[in-house]
Amino acid sequence: MRYTEMNKEQLAAEKERLEQQFNEYKAKGLKLDMSRGKPSPDQLDLSMEIMDHYGNEYVSENGIDCRNYGILDGIPEAKAIFSEMLEVSSEQIIIGGNSSLQLMYDFVIRALQLGVLGSEKPWCKYDKVKFLCPVPGYDRHFAICESLGIEMINIDYKSDGPDMDEVERLVSSDESIKGIWCVPMYSNPTGISYSDEVVRRFAMLKPAAKDFRILWDNAYCVHHLSDEHDKIINIIEECEKAGNPDMVVEFASTSKISFPGSGVAVIAASKANIDFIKSQLTFQTIGYDKLNQLHHVQYFRDINGIMEHMKRHAAIVKPKFDAVLSALDREIAPLGIGEWNSPRGGYFISFDSLDGCAKRIVGLAKDAGVVMTGAGATYPYCRDPRDSNIRIAPTYPTVDELNLAMEIFCICVKLASVEKLLGEK
Amino acid sequence: MRYTEMNKEQLAAEKERLEQQFNEYKAKGLKLDMSRGKPSPDQLDLSMEIMDHYGNEYVSENGIDCRNYGILDGIPEAKAIFSEMLEVSSEQIIIGGNSSLQLMYDFVIRALQLGVLGSEKPWCKYDKVKFLCPVPGYDRHFAICESLGIEMINIDYKSDGPDMDEVERLVSSDESIKGIWCVPMYSNPTGISYSDEVVRRFAMLKPAAKDFRILWDNAYCVHHLSDEHDKIINIIEECEKAGNPDMVVEFASTSKISFPGSGVAVIAASKANIDFIKSQLTFQTIGYDKLNQLHHVQYFRDINGIMEHMKRHAAIVKPKFDAVLSALDREIAPLGIGEWNSPRGGYFISFDSLDGCAKRIVGLAKDAGVVMTGAGATYPYCRDPRDSNIRIAPTYPTVDELNLAMEIFCICVKLASVEKLLGEK
Repeated sequence: MRYTEMNKEQLAAEKERLEQQFNEYKAKGLKLDMSRGKPSPDQLDLSMEIMDHYGNEYVSENGIDCRNYGILDGIPEAKAIFSEMLEVSSEQIIIGGNSSLQLMYDFVIRALQLGVLGSEKPWCKYDKVKFLCPVPGYDRHFAICESLGIEMINIDYKSDGPDMDEVERLVSSDESIKGIWCVPMYSNPTGISYSDEVVRRFAMLKPAAKDFRILWDNAYCVHHLSDEHDKIINIIEECEKAGNPDMVVEFASTSKISFPGSGVAVIAASKANIDFIKSQLTFQTIGYDKLNQLHHVQYFRDINGIMEHMKRHAAIVKPKFDAVLSALDREIAPLGIGEWNSPRGGYFISFDSLDGCAKRIVGLAKDAGVVMTGAGATYPYCRDPRDSNIRIAPTYPTVDELNLAMEIFCICVKLASVEKLLGEK
Repeated sequence: MRYTEMNKEQLAAEKERLEQQFNEYKAKGLKLDMSRGKPSPDQLDLSMEIMDHYGNEYVSENGIDCRNYGILDGIPEAKAIFSEMLEVSSEQIIIGGNSSLQLMYDFVIRALQLGVLGSEKPWCKYDKVKFLCPVPGYDRHFAICESLGIEMINIDYKSDGPDMDEVERLVSSDESIKGIWCVPMYSNPTGISYSDEVVRRFAMLKPAAKDFRILWDNAYCVHHLSDEHDKIINIIEECEKAGNPDMVVEFASTSKISFPGSGVAVIAASKANIDFIKSQLTFQTIGYDKLNQLHHVQYFRDINGIMEHMKRHAAIVKPKFDAVLSALDREIAPLGIGEWNSPRGGYFISFDSLDGCAKRIVGLAKDAGVVMTGAGATYPYCRDPRDSNIRIAPTYPTVDELNLAMEIFCICVKLASVEKLLGEK
């Protein structure tokens, strides 16, 4: 019976039953964590050969001693493999350090202080700088904006990407809108991949700000859960076709391919953008860690090596997604108190509770020893207007831990929902 | 006979002789490089065990999986070893990525955009931001300022550090002066180490700007050439004693200890400064490369390990310094056409030609196949007011290459000097 169809007495009885279950779990003093998109140790074990490869190898294919200074934009073989992954030329890519987040933060703070290619003046010289933020989205994107004083405007998601009518309307009418955050593939946390139409509409934007940038965080570009996977079209090519070659800057990394702490991050964009970014980067660093780039390439060899490797990740990750989804299907679906997606890749399942319940659910889960991403974290300023979105990150716990964590989570969803419905009756 | 004592005919004859020598070298089509402070391959070979250590080791002493996300300020054992090196507590240090230059650039751009601890407003909100720059100094420090629009004011060096009378006068009178670049030990390029008095006068500065910062780039803190080495006192301690605990931020790295491209960089400062810096850093990155930190510690173990290692560097580097100095002593000293230092550590020998000759010398050397650091590079805006300073970087070439390069360099110095003196007669 759906909770919404229950009368007050039925709800009260259900509440009592749930509280008892909740307290039993709480008494166990568990410590489970579904809060961050963090690969599990067995996923990291997949890449240990990268370390074995360290040995005595330090010379890149063009004879550069990777131990020493130099080579701002990365060694050629690293450019080659990531060019393949992102389908760009080696002139359209910079190989960075261990963090694509850092590349994004640095891009934005430089834009504020110095401007981007084509800026009339640095962004900080405007009274106000605004970014569009498809929601729910990645908390660290929003945190970059908030920490740097950039105003954020929510854009809702449709089933195939951000609400493009709204994006087009705002971008074309407001010169202070300088950017938009996109996770185009297996979006964090919605799991949505942008349709061809959405990507093309992005490429054809006519921004009021001549130095508007689409920040295309393609974090999950090869992170499929099975052979039946999503595909997105190449935004850099589409922007070029549309006469907006410099409007997009793409980011990616091996954080969730090899090692989150010691991976290799990349920026891709038009050659003009890349040249401009290099002209700014050269004051910040003499070069990123080339040994790590080299050893990544030695291990993965080419894009096929990466794709084979990602299948081994999928073999570990998919059963965890399935555990979360089957718990939700079994426990929540019949009660009509939540909605969620079934993504074909990425790192998250996005759960929407009844309005006004997300904070309570996360709080209850915490009390019972299950750490979730903070409610609201998927919205700018941590303000979820409906207080309904919860990001579930299933990768780090084992399947057994996850099954237990989901039992508890589902009780918390039910309990919060009953409380909410009782309050309304 | 000193060139200055020669008459016009003697100089003309000398010129003819030098031109002949010069052309003989030029005809050889050599390619020698004394331009950058870059360790030689045999120095890098000293650290290859760091790579051997990669193996399967990835857990830090407190159980952290260094492969995964997390730990913004570095693993405990890395904090321990660099705390020892810089004589600070582990609360006063952040372990960074592969580049101290990046930590410095990031510090300055954040100061502009967000301010530092105690700032009333971000530096970019002032009409003008100025930095004091002891000269000759490190070109990449000056490039950071120039690229970010910070005005630079030259401060001359005395024998024991920057002209502190001038530093005190300017810092106490001009609120727009927000910082000073210092390389306190074996300064780049002068080789000067700051005396205790200079360090204490720095610590006791009374800046007009409440958010003034001393950027203390201790790049060569353990880079001695022999057991008879310079010592500097601890600026962080001195600032604390003087009631200015937050006025200094110190930077260092293993770039010239282990690998320039894949070393470990650090920031040290008061705990309050470090806490503030972490509160800004947390938006830029989830964490630097902890595996690299771990493997550095596994190899060096403690400060004694670093000091022993640096002796092996010195055994390679000192003969190169000696080669440069003996060439200058033999070829230039008797002619009275140049001055230079004999540093007890670091990476450079600073050569001062007759006024107005540096550009010509570097140009001649280039024509003869010897690349020097660009004349003027050691001054803000590449403007050496006397056109006399040339930075000699002896570490990268072999001793044989260096002997040859110095033969050519000395001929260029002589030829440019003769030209200059002839022009004056």
